[in-house]
Parts: sequence; structure tokens; C-alpha cells
Amino acid sequence: METIQNIGKRAKAATLDAAQLSLETRNQILKMMAAAITEKSDVIIAANRQDLALATNLAAPMVKRLTLDEATIQSIADSLLAVAQLPDPLAGPYETWENHVKLKIVKKIVPLGVVAMVYEARPNVTVDAAALTLKSGNAVILRGGKEAIASNTALAAILRDVLEQRHLNPDMIQLITDTSHDSVNQLLHMREYVDVLIPRGSGHFIDFVVANATVPVIETGAGNTHIFVDASADQDEAINIIHNAKTQKPAVCNAAEKLLIHADIADEFLPKITGRLRAAHVELRGDEASRAIESDLTPASELDWDTEYNDLIMGVRIVSGIDEAIEWVNRHTTHHSETIISEDAENVAKFMNDVDAAVVYRNASSRFTDGFEFGFGAEIGISTQKLHARGPMGLKALTTIKYEVFGDGQIRD
Amino acid sequence: METIQNIGKRAKAATLDAAQLSLETRNQILKMMAAAITEKSDVIIAANRQDLALATNLAAPMVKRLTLDEATIQSIADSLLAVAQLPDPLAGPYETWENHVKLKIVKKIVPLGVVAMVYEARPNVTVDAAALTLKSGNAVILRGGKEAIASNTALAAILRDVLEQRHLNPDMIQLITDTSHDSVNQLLHMREYVDVLIPRGSGHFIDFVVANATVPVIETGAGNTHIFVDASADQDEAINIIHNAKTQKPAVCNAAEKLLIHADIADEFLPKITGRLRAAHVELRGDEASRAIESDLTPASELDWDTEYNDLIMGVRIVSGIDEAIEWVNRHTTHHSETIISEDAENVAKFMNDVDAAVVYRNASSRFTDGFEFGFGAEIGISTQKLHARGPMGLKALTTIKYEVFGDGQIRD
Repeated sequence: METIQNIGKRAKAATLDAAQLSLETRNQILKMMAAAITEKSDVIIAANRQDLALATNLAAPMVKRLTLDEATIQSIADSLLAVAQLPDPLAGPYETWENHVKLKIVKKIVPLGVVAMVYEARPNVTVDAAALTLKSGNAVILRGGKEAIASNTALAAILRDVLEQRHLNPDMIQLITDTSHDSVNQLLHMREYVDVLIPRGSGHFIDFVVANATVPVIETGAGNTHIFVDASADQDEAINIIHNAKTQKPAVCNAAEKLLIHADIADEFLPKITGRLRAAHVELRGDEASRAIESDLTPASELDWDTEYNDLIMGVRIVSGIDEAIEWVNRHTTHHSETIISEDAENVAKFMNDVDAAVVYRNASSRFTDGFEFGFGAEIGISTQKLHARGPMGLKALTTIKYEVFGDGQIRD
Repeated sequence: METIQNIGKRAKAATLDAAQLSLETRNQILKMMAAAITEKSDVIIAANRQDLALATNLAAPMVKRLTLDEATIQSIADSLLAVAQLPDPLAGPYETWENHVKLKIVKKIVPLGVVAMVYEARPNVTVDAAALTLKSGNAVILRGGKEAIASNTALAAILRDVLEQRHLNPDMIQLITDTSHDSVNQLLHMREYVDVLIPRGSGHFIDFVVANATVPVIETGAGNTHIFVDASADQDEAINIIHNAKTQKPAVCNAAEKLLIHADIADEFLPKITGRLRAAHVELRGDEASRAIESDLTPASELDWDTEYNDLIMGVRIVSGIDEAIEWVNRHTTHHSETIISEDAENVAKFMNDVDAAVVYRNASSRFTDGFEFGFGAEIGISTQKLHARGPMGLKALTTIKYEVFGDGQIRD
């Protein structure tokens, strides 16, 4: 098996090739890849069956994410075509100016170089990540979960074949087939070759990456998201929003996990919302004050307040008002998406200003934190950090800048 | 002595105060700080004398950087006034749009939060960093070198006094007076409180920070910068540029360290440039090919090619042409500033495209890599990384974005 170091070295060597591709060539390649994926769906399905045969210990939702059939393969091919339609993230016009000694400075947009993606058992990420990094002129190193290794190997081979057919360097797209923990560890420390590493997976895994990586990382995804229902809230609207944010897709990072209710309306509002959520099979875990109103709520433990359930469970807490709500959210947020439901403009402004999160909502479901819903046409992940990219990341997050300075002999006094 | 954890906690608490200051207030504070620094110059000089009395083991350039007198104090005050004149990095207009379900999305510019600066024996950095972080609405934690501890303590007290006079939270500006290595180590791991850490100092120190920090870091400053003299170069212009980039201020990161000469002109050009550099007391260390032309060059060791001298020393190497030059630079660059001297448009384009550095120059001195020379009006450092900020960093590098989303009940289908 090839060493991880060698994969890194070949990726770095491929960055110049990737950065030089014209927009037309990049889009043609994406379309050829879509056609190749469709054409070879039987090969992909056969490989996927090998993975599924070994997936006897996986939970049902994981098996669902892992499974590929004609329909999911078609949607993978469609997403390649969609990326081909997106505008060029490297296109100008670039900011250009002359400095005080007539140096012409051009702030150019350039690819990051080598992007490494570490993810779990979703084979579609292999193709999505390759498509977005190629479109933005980067080379990519993919390290998917061992549960999907046969599927990922088949998909990566198809993508690389297309590059070879075009007489291009196939190392623009590489898959690490060594699924040991050691291969991830090596990737986390390969500063010479990796320009950015994007981890996708559990909060636990992302924390591990952030704590251990020496390569630059973009932290994605953990979402212990709150909804604060202010005293002034339109309560019917609040119920619809909470129901949607909690139950529409509970396993994802932008689903709501905690509900804070203003004490002034708790007696009236809590029974209404618990009724609606219980009808949707949501388990509610309450603090003492909420259990004084609804005695049959499960008691919440201290641990609950920092737990991202990704499941039909919700923590409920009564707060004295906007200040306590903001203070509580800032103490427990994972800086992803936070919501206020309120008709009071002053409280809304305060919440939106003072809550430290990538996305803050007034009177809407946090399920909209998503590159497609934001209109970016693509999503490489949702950044919960503040440097480089924050919130849903489109193709621009895979670029950086470079200053090109043109002189005719200028020296500094 | 206050614990570092507690300093972090107080800084985080001060972020809301700092972010709420109007531009007018921030500028007034900066002007009051300038006045206070001027007024208390005797206190500052007395504190600085304590530092200097203990500085018996420091090298002369370090002592020079440490020394404060009326003139340097005036220039510190002037730089506060200059920051007050700069445009607001938090000002709009913000990008705003409606998505497909009429959610109004505002991409707001906001402060990073808590900025930590770790630096060496330059007391002016204490004031510069405080000024730039305040102007951009951040709280700052300053950790200067132990050689400047009395000066830094005096300066920080003056700045905090101004905040207290205005009845503002003085914890927007905090100095860590614990000058042990442990205080830096704690700072590197305080993810709960530190939004970004900017290290300034030797390449060795910055490498240590990058390898050990779990807080987000912006890597600054290391500069093993090259100049490639192409066969087509205007040789007189080349000599002026090399002389300027090497000798005008050899101790700084944008000074040239290595000279690559096209083989076709080496016989003619090398004697001319060595003559000019020797007259400026530059020690030249050459590869075998250059020593075959100029036998009295010091032989360069393998180590030389990756060393940032920050001194009147320069490595010299003959290369076969543009491809070898680019390949060599990309292998040894610290990604700071790289220069081609050439009249060949194709080679210039190739060098500028393919060399992986924050700033690439054609026919100019790399000494222009500087926030002021670029026209940014300020400089918090020079980023040699690709994420968030690259090259000279002005006030914008101390900001991030936040999405504010306004709905009226939207839920996701």
C-alpha cells in the first residue's frame, strides 16, 4: 500500500496541474465524470454490496447512508452536473491598485492547493468533495470511513479514469485506502503537503482532529442549537418552527436540540409545545422549573445541556428573559445556529448581536443553515469556526488569495 | 498573580462591550490613549529603564528594539492617532439577499472576539496590538516578552486607565504579567476563551506555536525569501533590487535571503552582484556552480537553503532556468515573498502563477511586503498561511462574518 506521505507528495505535485485547468476544462471533466458514474452504476453497486455485506454491526441510519442504488447513483451524477453549472470561484475581476511608488498590486483569487477530507460512511461525499475541489482548482486527498471502502475505491477509480482519459494528472483526486487510525493521524500532521483538512463526522471526532492536527483545519458541523421563545412570540408560529427544527430531520447538525422559554409565558406555552412534540414522538428533558409546570418531563442532567442528540430528544428550560437566554446560549452553544422567536425588535436585535454563532435566526427554522438553502449552489460543510469561513461553505471557502506585485525596478527607501 | 484562565474568562466577557462601541467612541478612546501616552512619557521611560537595567545579556539589536525614549514614545502616540484615522473595518454595507422562501439573509461583519498576541521584546507592539484590536471591536490578551515586562506593564496600565475614565470595561485590554513559558502554554490551549492567537517572533517560536496550539492561530512572518534573476533580466535593475532587498533592513522577514541566477548569465552577472553586495558587507554563500565562477564564495551547506539569516548573509545558487527556479523556490519557500527579475513575459507569468507564496514580485524589492506599503494603513502582521488572511494583514484580518437571518415563520419542507 502506498504511504500516506507519498500520497501527500503526489497531491502537492498535482496542485499546479489542477490550478491551471481552464473553467471550460474543469466543467467538461465534471460532465464526463457524471456520465462515467451513470455508465458504471453496476460496478459501483457491486462494490457497495461488498461494503453492505460487512455492515452487519452498523445501525440502521448508517446502513441507509451507506447504501447505493440506481437512484442514489443518479443523484450523485446529477450533483456533478450541478457543480459544472456553478460560477467559477477563481474568476475575477480581482481587486487591483497602485501603491505610492506605482507598484501595481493585484489581489488574485487562487486555489488553496491540497484539500484533505476525512469523513465517515457516506460514499456520496467522495464524489461531492472531488467535484467541489476540482471545480475550485484544488487537488484532493479523500479519507472515507472503512465501512465504505469498496464503494469509495470504485468511485475514486472512475473519477481518476476520467482524468487519465483527458491525459491529465490523476493525482488531483486520490483516495487513501489505508483505513487504519494511523492513516488519519499521519494526515493530521502532514504540514508540508496538506493546505487544509476538513473533517466531517461526529462532534467527538472533530474535537479530536482540532486538538491533534498541526495542519490547518476548518472545523465543521457540531450543532447544539437552541431556540429561545420570547414572551412576545407569536406562539402558533413558535410551535411550527420548533416542530420543524426538531423533527424534520433530527440527525443533522442544524436540527434544534434545546428549547428556552421565557418564564412569563411558560405556563401557557409549555403545555402546547410539549403536546405537539410528543405527538411527533420527541422525548422532552426538562429543568426543575419546566417540570414544575409539566411534571412528566424527564429530568435533564447537567450533561444534557451540552449534548447534541441528533435524535428525537429535546432539552427544555425556563429562563427569566432575554439576558439569561443570551447568557445561557453563549455558555452552551457550539457556535452553529441559534434562534429567537420574538415580536420585540429590541430583544431580537440584542439576541442577534450578542449571541456568538455562525448563523442567528429570527422567527425561522434553523434547518435553513445549508449552502443550498443559502443560495450558494454547493456546500463543502458548515464551519463553526471564525477564521477563513463561517457558516455554510460554498466553493469560495476552497480558495485563498495571492498578491501579484508588478514593478519596474522599485526599491524601498 | 491572576490565573491565565481567569484572564481569558474576563476577556471573553469583555467581547460584548468591545463589539458594542460605536466608531466614534473607539476613535475617541484611541485619541485619549495617544494623549495619555504622551503625558505619561516619564512614567514609561522610568519603567523602561528598569527593563534596560536587567538587559545586560541582550544583543545590541534587541536592546535597541527594547529602548523607549521621548521620540519613540511620540511615535507610539502618533500610531494611535493614525489608527483613529483609519476607516471602520466593521462598517457595511453588508451583503444582503433573500433566499427562495423569502428569508432575508444579512452577511454582517463582526469582530473575532478575543485576540491573543504573543510577542517578544518590543514594547511598541503592546500599544499597536491594543489599538488595532480595539479599532476592530475585539478584546485583546497581550503576552509580551519578559525583557519588556516593566515597560509593557506601564503601557497597559495607561491604556486601561483610559477605558476606566470612560467608564468602560478595562478588560478589553489585558496584559499577562506571568512571563513563564507556562503562561504561553496555557494561552495556546484556551479554546473556550481565545478566538485567535497571533504569534510574533522567531521562526522557531512560531513553529512551536503552530505545532502545539489548539486555539486557532494565524501564522506570521517567517521569510526565507528568494530572488530569481532570469536570463532576460535588466541586470542593472536586478543589482539595485537585490541590493535593496538584502541590505536595506536585513533583520526583517521581507528581506531577501537567497539569490538564484539563470545559468546563461551567471558568468557575466555573478561577479557584478557579488561586487556590489560585498561593498555592502554581505557574506555570500554559494553552491558549487557559483563557486566555479567566483571561487572565494563561502561554500553553502544544505542547511543554508532553509535558513532565514535575518542578517547580512545571502545564499547564491545557479539554476538552469525558470522551471528549476520555480521548483527550487517551492521546495524551500516559507510562503512569504518571492521575486522574479525578468523581461520575459512568459517566464514572469509562469513564476507568478506557480510559486506558492503570499506575495510574488516582478522587478521590485520584496521589502514592500508590508501593510503600510500596500496601502492598508496598519499592519497586525504578515500571514504566511492560506486560511483567513494571507500576506500583510490590516484591520480586516481581525474581523469575521456572521449571518443574520430574518424570517416570519419560514420552516423547511
